[in-house]
Amino acid sequence: MRKQLIVQKFGGSSVANIERIKRVADRVVSCKRKGYDLVIVVSALGDTTDELIELANRINSEPSEREMDMLLSTGEQISVALLAMAIQKLGFEAISFTGAQVGILTDSIHTRARIIRINTDKIKAELNKGKIVIVAGFQGVTLNQDITTLGRGGSDLSAVALAKELRADECEIYTDVAGIYTADPRIEPKAKKIKEITYDEMLEMASLGAQVMQARSIEVAKKYNVPIHVRSSFNKEVGTMITKDTGKMEDVVVNGVTLNKTEAKITVCDVPDRPGIAAKIFKELSAAGISVDMIVQNVSHTRKTDISFTVNKAELAKAMRITKKVSGDIGCGDVLSDEDIARISIVGVGMKSHRGVAAAMFGALAKNKINIEMISTSDISISCIIKKKFAKNAVRALHGAFKLDK
Amino acid sequence: MRKQLIVQKFGGSSVANIERIKRVADRVVSCKRKGYDLVIVVSALGDTTDELIELANRINSEPSEREMDMLLSTGEQISVALLAMAIQKLGFEAISFTGAQVGILTDSIHTRARIIRINTDKIKAELNKGKIVIVAGFQGVTLNQDITTLGRGGSDLSAVALAKELRADECEIYTDVAGIYTADPRIEPKAKKIKEITYDEMLEMASLGAQVMQARSIEVAKKYNVPIHVRSSFNKEVGTMITKDTGKMEDVVVNGVTLNKTEAKITVCDVPDRPGIAAKIFKELSAAGISVDMIVQNVSHTRKTDISFTVNKAELAKAMRITKKVSGDIGCGDVLSDEDIARISIVGVGMKSHRGVAAAMFGALAKNKINIEMISTSDISISCIIKKKFAKNAVRALHGAFKLDK
Repeated sequence: MRKQLIVQKFGGSSVANIERIKRVADRVVSCKRKGYDLVIVVSALGDTTDELIELANRINSEPSEREMDMLLSTGEQISVALLAMAIQKLGFEAISFTGAQVGILTDSIHTRARIIRINTDKIKAELNKGKIVIVAGFQGVTLNQDITTLGRGGSDLSAVALAKELRADECEIYTDVAGIYTADPRIEPKAKKIKEITYDEMLEMASLGAQVMQARSIEVAKKYNVPIHVRSSFNKEVGTMITKDTGKMEDVVVNGVTLNKTEAKITVCDVPDRPGIAAKIFKELSAAGISVDMIVQNVSHTRKTDISFTVNKAELAKAMRITKKVSGDIGCGDVLSDEDIARISIVGVGMKSHRGVAAAMFGALAKNKINIEMISTSDISISCIIKKKFAKNAVRALHGAFKLDK
Repeated sequence: MRKQLIVQKFGGSSVANIERIKRVADRVVSCKRKGYDLVIVVSALGDTTDELIELANRINSEPSEREMDMLLSTGEQISVALLAMAIQKLGFEAISFTGAQVGILTDSIHTRARIIRINTDKIKAELNKGKIVIVAGFQGVTLNQDITTLGRGGSDLSAVALAKELRADECEIYTDVAGIYTADPRIEPKAKKIKEITYDEMLEMASLGAQVMQARSIEVAKKYNVPIHVRSSFNKEVGTMITKDTGKMEDVVVNGVTLNKTEAKITVCDVPDRPGIAAKIFKELSAAGISVDMIVQNVSHTRKTDISFTVNKAELAKAMRITKKVSGDIGCGDVLSDEDIARISIVGVGMKSHRGVAAAMFGALAKNKINIEMISTSDISISCIIKKKFAKNAVRALHGAFKLDK
């Protein structure tokens, strides 16, 4: 009978210093003692990546992306070697690999490469010898043997992809929080850890501002049905399971409340109500590499209407420049921006089959005198743009209204 | 017509910080502008290697050598990436490679691997595109794709081996001194830079304590006749050429004076004058991995004699333990040690054909009232062990006696 295989991923904060690396080693070894086969994926120590980026920028403000990957990949290589040493110190056999050594083949889009395939022969051979295998996260290699990195959330992606290829029984993501919560516990102290959540819900939560895992890794996990367990690297508590379905007869209607304060709103006033006008604006923004999130346009009762949309704050200035130019060309009115907004969302697969969820949400906000500026809905989420000053109140109001603390 | 190809090696002190990396880039680019093809070999930044070793030791006092290589090889990887960025900043094309990427194949003796062969296809392809190729020194890779390091002097070795495989016209070793001197300039201010020196002389100088290059790299250079140019990374002065022969009709008799204070002397008194006694002592020392340097045994006029030999100070305690045990077993007298010694040597290929050099050396020391405790000679060098307090005086006396300042 095959032993159970677990892929465990430890992020930068879990290996920020020598003491923490030793603690990770303890944890890994105690799991090995229980009889599991283990593949460990590790990020760079603490702030190493940021320090390397700064070093590069002091030399060249626009460093070559190939060389950037060459530089950054050393961060994880240091981590895996040190973790292997720490595990060996505890009397267990461990062996570390870079992404290149283990054959994590990617395309050649440096600094944000996509994994093409993974050759798991080497890992399997070492697992068969009883060794704990440690793999550098965040990195891969092109067919041409150039080192690549996977971009934001890259180490999670390495872990999920390895779990898929190795047919692991579980992929554990160790982080500095205890799991996924019904709301940010710093805002709503009554927030509770969610035991189980579906990939779809987690995708909504991830894209809506819950910062535990990037959407990218969850998409891969969903595609290949890799069970993910998000849990704390600082204690032994069970965290949150992310799976295809939670196995409950009836899905929970609302599973969590998320808050996102990274967006700004742009409103184009008095847009002529003719076909193709909206397309012109968003085509130009897209050509400039600006990604637009919520878009709201009301049905107009006159021959002019307003269009509002949100963009990332970091791109607001650029987006305003482009929008003003386009709207001048096509004869719109003023272009207004507002950075003082927040997006508040409720997420839950049960929403599909339950009417009245939106009404309950708007009602709870109204009861707390919170004005709604924009609304957008998906199958399993409803989002409202509100003034930023109401953000915390809104989280608590919705958390209470949907009884997430029960 | 093939362009001239130069391999340039920059040590850790030449790339100790951002400013120095930029300076190296300037230097490389100005050489490229002259029309040379260039392969650059770089060591880890300043003290990086020592810092990584310390990190490892805090985790595991006896770290696995495979993992140690995994860890240490990141040092040079950081250097090559940063240097490539610095060169690109100046508007030139550059590409960096790890030892593994470039195919520096070694045996699997981790932390002190030996180079088996180098596949230069990749380097040649990039040179043909007009790029400056930057290779991480000190490291290689086994057939099994494990990362190895080459041990002390490893980056010099990488450079010399690459120069050989690429049939480079010259291998430049950039360092923090201006070349090879007739004596240590900190001891003898009149010391002069040697323009040309043979591999054999340099080998004697290296093994006798001149710290510019390790004997290992010079042996390879000698074997494959790779011309080496040792020069300063801080100025444009011509340094010292190390070649097969210096092209002079008559070799210089004495080319330099070297001093070595890393050895200690052991004397075994009253050794029975029977065949095989000395063999017993040195067999045991060798079995314990202790390398013995000078050995002196006088012809005995009684039935007992004294044997003296030198070992590295770091191994003195262990060597004393073994020697005492063996000499007890075979009925010798006291075993004495002396750390308070220095070895002073003169080196020069011309010595072979010139009589009276030894006499001149002993005379110069006698004139300065410096007592000689042991003497040892080779084809092209003569060494004396003296009390350490006389060391500096001895260097100056010999430097003057052989007119090295002229």
